Amino acid sequence: MYPLEDGCFAPRNQWYVAAWLSEISRTPKERMILDEPVILYRTQADEIVALAGLCPHRGFPLASGKLIGDDIECPYHGLRFGPDGACTLIPSQDTIPAACRLRSYPVAARWQWLWIWMGDPALADETLIPDHVEAKLVDTDFRNAGGNYYLVPGRYVLLHDNLLDLNHVPFLHRDSFGGDGGGAIQVPEVTVHENIVTCSFSQPNIACPPFLSELLGYDGPVARQYISYFYAPCMHVIWDSISKLDPETGKAEPLGALLHIHAVTPATKNTAHYFQGEGQDFSHTEPCLAEVFRSSELVSKALDEDVSATRLIEQSIAACHGRIPEILLKADKAAVLGRRILQAMIRAEDGGQSHRLEPADAMPAA
Amino acid sequence: MYPLEDGCFAPRNQWYVAAWLSEISRTPKERMILDEPVILYRTQADEIVALAGLCPHRGFPLASGKLIGDDIECPYHGLRFGPDGACTLIPSQDTIPAACRLRSYPVAARWQWLWIWMGDPALADETLIPDHVEAKLVDTDFRNAGGNYYLVPGRYVLLHDNLLDLNHVPFLHRDSFGGDGGGAIQVPEVTVHENIVTCSFSQPNIACPPFLSELLGYDGPVARQYISYFYAPCMHVIWDSISKLDPETGKAEPLGALLHIHAVTPATKNTAHYFQGEGQDFSHTEPCLAEVFRSSELVSKALDEDVSATRLIEQSIAACHGRIPEILLKADKAAVLGRRILQAMIRAEDGGQSHRLEPADAMPAA
Amino acid sequence: MYPLEDGCFAPRNQWYVAAWLSEISRTPKERMILDEPVILYRTQADEIVALAGLCPHRGFPLASGKLIGDDIECPYHGLRFGPDGACTLIPSQDTIPAACRLRSYPVAARWQWLWIWMGDPALADETLIPDHVEAKLVDTDFRNAGGNYYLVPGRYVLLHDNLLDLNHVPFLHRDSFGGDGGGAIQVPEVTVHENIVTCSFSQPNIACPPFLSELLGYDGPVARQYISYFYAPCMHVIWDSISKLDPETGKAEPLGALLHIHAVTPATKNTAHYFQGEGQDFSHTEPCLAEVFRSSELVSKALDEDVSATRLIEQSIAACHGRIPEILLKADKAAVLGRRILQAMIRAEDGGQSHRLEPADAMPAA
Repeated sequence: MYPLEDGCFAPRNQWYVAAWLSEISRTPKERMILDEPVILYRTQADEIVALAGLCPHRGFPLASGKLIGDDIECPYHGLRFGPDGACTLIPSQDTIPAACRLRSYPVAARWQWLWIWMGDPALADETLIPDHVEAKLVDTDFRNAGGNYYLVPGRYVLLHDNLLDLNHVPFLHRDSFGGDGGGAIQVPEVTVHENIVTCSFSQPNIACPPFLSELLGYDGPVARQYISYFYAPCMHVIWDSISKLDPETGKAEPLGALLHIHAVTPATKNTAHYFQGEGQDFSHTEPCLAEVFRSSELVSKALDEDVSATRLIEQSIAACHGRIPEILLKADKAAVLGRRILQAMIRAEDGGQSHRLEPADAMPAA
Repeated sequence: MYPLEDGCFAPRNQWYVAAWLSEISRTPKERMILDEPVILYRTQADEIVALAGLCPHRGFPLASGKLIGDDIECPYHGLRFGPDGACTLIPSQDTIPAACRLRSYPVAARWQWLWIWMGDPALADETLIPDHVEAKLVDTDFRNAGGNYYLVPGRYVLLHDNLLDLNHVPFLHRDSFGGDGGGAIQVPEVTVHENIVTCSFSQPNIACPPFLSELLGYDGPVARQYISYFYAPCMHVIWDSISKLDPETGKAEPLGALLHIHAVTPATKNTAHYFQGEGQDFSHTEPCLAEVFRSSELVSKALDEDVSATRLIEQSIAACHGRIPEILLKADKAAVLGRRILQAMIRAEDGGQSHRLEPADAMPAA
Repeated sequence: MYPLEDGCFAPRNQWYVAAWLSEISRTPKERMILDEPVILYRTQADEIVALAGLCPHRGFPLASGKLIGDDIECPYHGLRFGPDGACTLIPSQDTIPAACRLRSYPVAARWQWLWIWMGDPALADETLIPDHVEAKLVDTDFRNAGGNYYLVPGRYVLLHDNLLDLNHVPFLHRDSFGGDGGGAIQVPEVTVHENIVTCSFSQPNIACPPFLSELLGYDGPVARQYISYFYAPCMHVIWDSISKLDPETGKAEPLGALLHIHAVTPATKNTAHYFQGEGQDFSHTEPCLAEVFRSSELVSKALDEDVSATRLIEQSIAACHGRIPEILLKADKAAVLGRRILQAMIRAEDGGQSHRLEPADAMPAA
């Protein structure tokens, strides 16, 4: 499906962010991921469990079920399933058919995120999760504040497109941080290394944007450099460093760097989960500026603008019955390379068809 | 369509409950039945008429039309149709084309119900309507109160599945009558005789459920036996008898029986009509307990729970693009046999394709 | 699609009313026309511009964009397009790919209407626009007041059907002007000349309808004659002349004529734009009666009735999965001839397939 090839949705043998860790509790939470209903909860020992969201008996959604110890109870006929997905109780019979189990999804906690593997569990290698130290998420120089979440009414690739071309900032975000000196209009340097697309661009000499003046206690000219990393198929980290410029010598002296953190996970064919946070590598005293910034009106307005753009383009696709014309520009190179990686990942999985659940044979178990 | 074979919806050459008799008046009422719009009204002589709901001229829905005597007048161009569906007036011309008529559906009033035959009228044999004496609906020992109605946002077979496995009662209805001693967790005895599926199960010794204590004026141990009859493809009657147990001898002495009465009629592919009532074979003095019970908060809450479960499973089917995996358990035997009867009825009708209306040739009549 | 042949929607190489001139300003307005998003605005020199509504870069809807002089700026990445659709600025690069342009639609202002040509611009011959003098819209004898607009939730042909059989007036409009003497129940005289269907019918001797009595200052018997012109595929003008009848001699003496003015433009497959106005050829003193009448409760109620009928029939078509049976009557001759003209226009365009935009090749431009 647009902008990928027909019939292609998203790679499955990949790690995706399923939730903020803070979202997961002893109350089961349902989330559509890669077009599958998943429930997430914590055991009594605080382990996180990710299971298929529909009871295999009658398809009842389990999210409204109760936890009995570490087991989830189906609200319809009382079947229970353990953290590994195995059925532990069928009230009306003693034997439990082997097929009566929930699919269990490998998960891994990293930084403030829960990562999930929706594909073949045998391939769920945790070393494939983006390196969170390298990405500065757990770099000790940084203090990072996650927590923003949006269910976006548009297909996930549109959010990647958006994040991979920051030339939109001065326009789409004119009324938020784009009007505040954010963003650079230029064709960035783009490189690809395995599944990572890196873009860099810079503003060599601008007035310090007001919100940064406030954060950094500095009011003169600055150089600003952005390096954006897309760890396909899910995570984006934008390293945004600001240097004070000596008005006489023009020499740059680092003031500090912000980290703009994003994860995008396909929900359904036409909706996506969007997780966002902010970081800083300076001023480690309280209050944490990243946290204040992350939950600020400025960031909230900018995210609303991105969500709205995605919704509008999804509506354009619907109005055009599934495929819009597009002219790709030089600044779209990163987006195009990102799509190519996604497409190649899907193709490597046999068009994404290989891990689909087939409906069980509709014959009685006994 | 799930859970039947692809392309199979519902048998047409069968009787279905179209409405409570009390719903039908001199104001035409529209109801979708087997995916066809139907209008129902009473003639001046109080005969009930069931006609196709769209004017054959331009497809205008007739339900908002006026009755002129016993004729329905189309609100668009004033065409009139008699109780037999024949056109009686075309204001703009004298001759009436033979094809200009509404399909008329055979109907039969039984107990408080209007039954309708949506298939080939030549096959509409009233002896095929379930025997209402045998089903205790017009048994003189019973006083029965109908009147509950729901338009359920889920396919009709899900309601049959629900009614054919009462193991759901202690779970789905935990907060209504399931928490009140209702329902038995067990694999019932199931028998099939022609189009009737019979299930029986029992609670040999339980404390009298509070709502029954009140109804029966008895507070000790009871035995409770349920026999559920599914008269495919539409009606369910559950005979629910309660016996007082002598605490010393254990001997059972009948206290009385309740009747739980249900009819399920396909509306559209994804919606169903659900008609429900209650009966009693004891205490024939006023007030009628069945009527009080039928309209009680307890029953209303339980029906809401069934409707909600159906809606949720319909949503699961949609999320899974039409077909959910299912593991059938021993207690599903009755539901599976019920589906088999429905499937066989459809297959006997050539896949349900035989009685579809074809669009008329789009040529002018004159 | 119903009531045309499968796959046929609407002819493209034709002029359609896009808007009232008064609707178009320096704030871009989006309108779906023939299933394509179009934006309409005025240049600084007051020329009207009609451009494709989606940015060719990423499909962002341009209607929320700002005008920079005469150019529209895309709110996403700041691309600008001139009144001819050519891209005038790509902020991130100097060269502009030739393919990066908006389709520009030929337009023509006539009377109070903006006409648009959605097909091949090379064929956009303004002499194909219905003759507005002949149609009395700019006839000096007439004062005409446009301005009513509805986005109708039904396919456009249903509105043509409605306008081409005025036998609906005494029924559908019973509570508005149909109850006021409007409409004649009769099979009209129908003639076809090229793309114009003409129907005439008359009421030789009726009491002067109350609203006309008031307009004309006359209270006796009148003869009323209607001649309805359908200029396929878009415009209808109904010339409605009223003559005073001498009660003794029966001689008719013209009192005046009303003009009922309509245009119907396909929006999407299932929605249509409906433009309506009224005219008069008498009493050219202020206030303009046509204007008062056009915005009266009577006309507003009647239009609501037509819109509602269209919506209901569209719902019938949906309930019948795309095609309703229909019996065509003698009075449907004009509607059938109208459909035949539409069908022939589409067929002449190779099934309407010839002017579809194909999605651009999804390769980067440089």
